[in-house]
Amino acid sequence: MKIKISELRNLMVKLVSSKYYTKKEALSIVEPLIWAEISGKNTQGILKLLGSEPYQDIKPIYKPKVIKKAQLSTLIDGGKSAAPLVAQMATDKVIKIATNKGFGIVGVNNTFSSVGSLGYYARKIAKANLIGIVMASSPKAVNHFGGIDPVYGTNPIAFGFPTNEYPITFDMASSAITWYGLVRAKALGEKIPENVAINKDGNITTDPTEAMDGAILPFDRSYKGSGLAMSVEILSGILPGAGYVLLDEDWGTTMIAISPDLLTSTKEFKRKSSDLIKKVKAGRTLKGQKIVFPGYDKEEEIKKILKKNEIEIEDKLLKDLKSRL
Amino acid sequence: MKIKISELRNLMVKLVSSKYYTKKEALSIVEPLIWAEISGKNTQGILKLLGSEPYQDIKPIYKPKVIKKAQLSTLIDGGKSAAPLVAQMATDKVIKIATNKGFGIVGVNNTFSSVGSLGYYARKIAKANLIGIVMASSPKAVNHFGGIDPVYGTNPIAFGFPTNEYPITFDMASSAITWYGLVRAKALGEKIPENVAINKDGNITTDPTEAMDGAILPFDRSYKGSGLAMSVEILSGILPGAGYVLLDEDWGTTMIAISPDLLTSTKEFKRKSSDLIKKVKAGRTLKGQKIVFPGYDKEEEIKKILKKNEIEIEDKLLKDLKSRL
Repeated sequence: MKIKISELRNLMVKLVSSKYYTKKEALSIVEPLIWAEISGKNTQGILKLLGSEPYQDIKPIYKPKVIKKAQLSTLIDGGKSAAPLVAQMATDKVIKIATNKGFGIVGVNNTFSSVGSLGYYARKIAKANLIGIVMASSPKAVNHFGGIDPVYGTNPIAFGFPTNEYPITFDMASSAITWYGLVRAKALGEKIPENVAINKDGNITTDPTEAMDGAILPFDRSYKGSGLAMSVEILSGILPGAGYVLLDEDWGTTMIAISPDLLTSTKEFKRKSSDLIKKVKAGRTLKGQKIVFPGYDKEEEIKKILKKNEIEIEDKLLKDLKSRL
Repeated sequence: MKIKISELRNLMVKLVSSKYYTKKEALSIVEPLIWAEISGKNTQGILKLLGSEPYQDIKPIYKPKVIKKAQLSTLIDGGKSAAPLVAQMATDKVIKIATNKGFGIVGVNNTFSSVGSLGYYARKIAKANLIGIVMASSPKAVNHFGGIDPVYGTNPIAFGFPTNEYPITFDMASSAITWYGLVRAKALGEKIPENVAINKDGNITTDPTEAMDGAILPFDRSYKGSGLAMSVEILSGILPGAGYVLLDEDWGTTMIAISPDLLTSTKEFKRKSSDLIKKVKAGRTLKGQKIVFPGYDKEEEIKKILKKNEIEIEDKLLKDLKSRL
């Protein structure tokens, strides 16, 4: 059914602030979820407040706190808070540091939930006229190329680039399918695609339960995807002092922000990024295909939805949400 | 035939310094090529001094010069020198800046040749106890997902990570096959693999000449590889003020170095990176398969070759090299 975005936000904030989080904290947690719904990434939206481990039930041990700080960097101990709350803090900090110094890096450890859509944070950094690189580690699910045991997380990486119009926000998992893809297929009794996962003996499987006991393959099924998963595991697991390899708890996040002014000017960078998009879009396509710029091409639609202040949410999900209040 | 490495180096330096470069500059250009030969990346080795556009024939307009400089950054105008010469300067500078400040970024523009194996530079940064990220843009060859015209370069990216033993150096092209892969297949009259390139009408081709007139596909044939190619194009083309999109000349390079001390300690970082390797290698493999850590697993072999001071080079190549002296 259609629901006013402001109403949906109020419902979600009410739910998230019902146990462990203040209204302000709840708003911080909810904002990336709303954005995910609006921008069509609905696996990272309202669903995060449903299911068996919803954000509102994550009990922090203590409030997120800065445990290491220098001119260019900040390390935040999440105190086991819901990860988006800590990621929002990290985003604000990395923007502030890089705006002042040209570069900033902020790491997060001691959270054990998903930060949601990385694109949200990369977009926020790009909207501050900075280049954003955001990476997150997550529980073991993906094999190292050549091996059959799950060792790395699905380890997403996102890039945010400012342009003269909207940011480009490119966001991808290092795995051939997301963990949620397995959960969803299992719940619906569906098979998963061929060649995205192996069972515990290392053989290709299309059964989501077997895949959960086995491993998800790197996104390109080669050493390249595996190397990228490894790099994200090191940069967002080891570097911020979070868990790494065979990870269960202590997911990590690392955010990097770079001012284009370090090497060129922000004005030139934005002009050329817009020009890149224009030139690439002027190219030919096969019939029925489209050239899409990640994030960028959603922004017109997002603007319309925000203006209308109305969004379509599945009845079942909304009912579930309300039943938890 | 087998040849002493020192003798090979002397021959190569003599050739590269025969026209436009001093002995010292030639050594700088030759070193990454020697390393490529030793580490088995022989498409990036001695071949760079053969063929129709060898490094020694690249006439600089002027010596590489720093054109922008701040605390954390340096931008180098290559003066159209052979790219490895400028990349070596960039590597030394980025290591110096990041060692002092915790972070450094160095960009290169105004070169129009390949820097060779990016792994060489990433390894050098990692050997200085820094995390290295090295990216390079190159002439248009790869399509944007959905499009059929070549718009991006084969755009390699490399990561270097220090460990307690050897650096991990992960180095990949964003394309399904390298440009050299096409050149080689054409020269040998061979076909290229299925599903790595399209012809000028956008249909899959196994003919290298048709592929050269068409486009190489992103390495995973999806929006992810395309997004990565785009990101490298922006970061190593637009950011350092080099060419970008539909590029012919003015290839760019961007190097980033980050001290692990910003978020953790270098000691902890190296210990955990070694631990990651150990744990991943302890996992199971399918019969006949192997878990390989990029760069890292070559280092023992490299050490042996260097100790022996002897390397196997194809007779034909060595003859060609000598004939040019």
